Amino acid sequence: MIKATALEQVVRLLGEMPGIGSKTAQRLAYYVLSRETAYAHQLGDALRELKDSLQWCRTCYNISAAEMCEICRQDERDHRLICVVEDAANLANIERSGGFKGYYHVLQGVLSPVNGIGPDDLRIQELLARLEDDQVTEIILATNPTVEGEATAMYLSDILADREVSVSRIGVGVPIGGSLDYCDEITMAKAFENRRRLH
Amino acid sequence: MIKATALEQVVRLLGEMPGIGSKTAQRLAYYVLSRETAYAHQLGDALRELKDSLQWCRTCYNISAAEMCEICRQDERDHRLICVVEDAANLANIERSGGFKGYYHVLQGVLSPVNGIGPDDLRIQELLARLEDDQVTEIILATNPTVEGEATAMYLSDILADREVSVSRIGVGVPIGGSLDYCDEITMAKAFENRRRLH
Repeated sequence: MIKATALEQVVRLLGEMPGIGSKTAQRLAYYVLSRETAYAHQLGDALRELKDSLQWCRTCYNISAAEMCEICRQDERDHRLICVVEDAANLANIERSGGFKGYYHVLQGVLSPVNGIGPDDLRIQELLARLEDDQVTEIILATNPTVEGEATAMYLSDILADREVSVSRIGVGVPIGGSLDYCDEITMAKAFENRRRLH
Repeated sequence: MIKATALEQVVRLLGEMPGIGSKTAQRLAYYVLSRETAYAHQLGDALRELKDSLQWCRTCYNISAAEMCEICRQDERDHRLICVVEDAANLANIERSGGFKGYYHVLQGVLSPVNGIGPDDLRIQELLARLEDDQVTEIILATNPTVEGEATAMYLSDILADREVSVSRIGVGVPIGGSLDYCDEITMAKAFENRRRLH
């Protein structure tokens, strides 16, 4: 129809995002067109910079603007607790709930034999290295309550069994089959409160 | 939390889009982060160029990459018909349905006393000017079947009453209270087929 390359590109690229079909992508592109030019420029620039400006925290592998992320730089948090999450989005949602005051470890994925993702593809060795620090007394497994998330939690529970650290799994509250991304603050806080100890 | 300006900006700006809340905006931002850098760069550049590369067609006021839009440049379409739409997104959806082979006129809005939008804020004079061309025999009013869209259609119907042109309104098929953006191709085609003549 309209042979505007930029428009077609925006529609195509937005359409690749999760939950955004081609009609929604088109509607969003037209929304940008209806806004002032500064909006399109700011969004464009921010998206362009998004990846360039960020790196992985060298401690917890969260997304970070510096070598160490803002959470790892906070010394007043509870050094005894490490919460293991699948990705930075899950971490952000837990953090927003305010129900957890320890530190995090981002696996950057889940075990998924179907997709060829094994233990070596996750930040598991980096997690084990952090246990050399004697301050850590509990690992809270906060992977998603999906088949793969549960399998990853069980795998971690197994390899942590002989370590001098207690291991727990977030519990009551997070609905099975759901995603932490959509969990509300109260449910999330409850899940931390009701975590059950695995060993 | 994460003090990454680009990330916060992306979340904030995406969150301003219709139908995208702050959680969805965050999820989309993290999706971009999970993709290869080229994706973020392409999307950023395309968004940046989006408005700069486009202008209003001098004939129909559709979004256009050139002085005249691609539809107005097609000489083989039916010169007797002008379909009046609210905006370029509605035009694109009608065009995709393939149910209309005439030309368009984009009002760039609807009458909305509440928002202070009157007839002078729409491309109505420009529509009337196009009727000087004797080829036009029918104006199809395809504003959305909302309160404001209906009011705009009625207003146009009134001011077109003394013109040598028949005026019709798209009919059966488009659900009342809905939006043309979400109308499927078959319903859209049906609405054009079943248009009722107003005078």
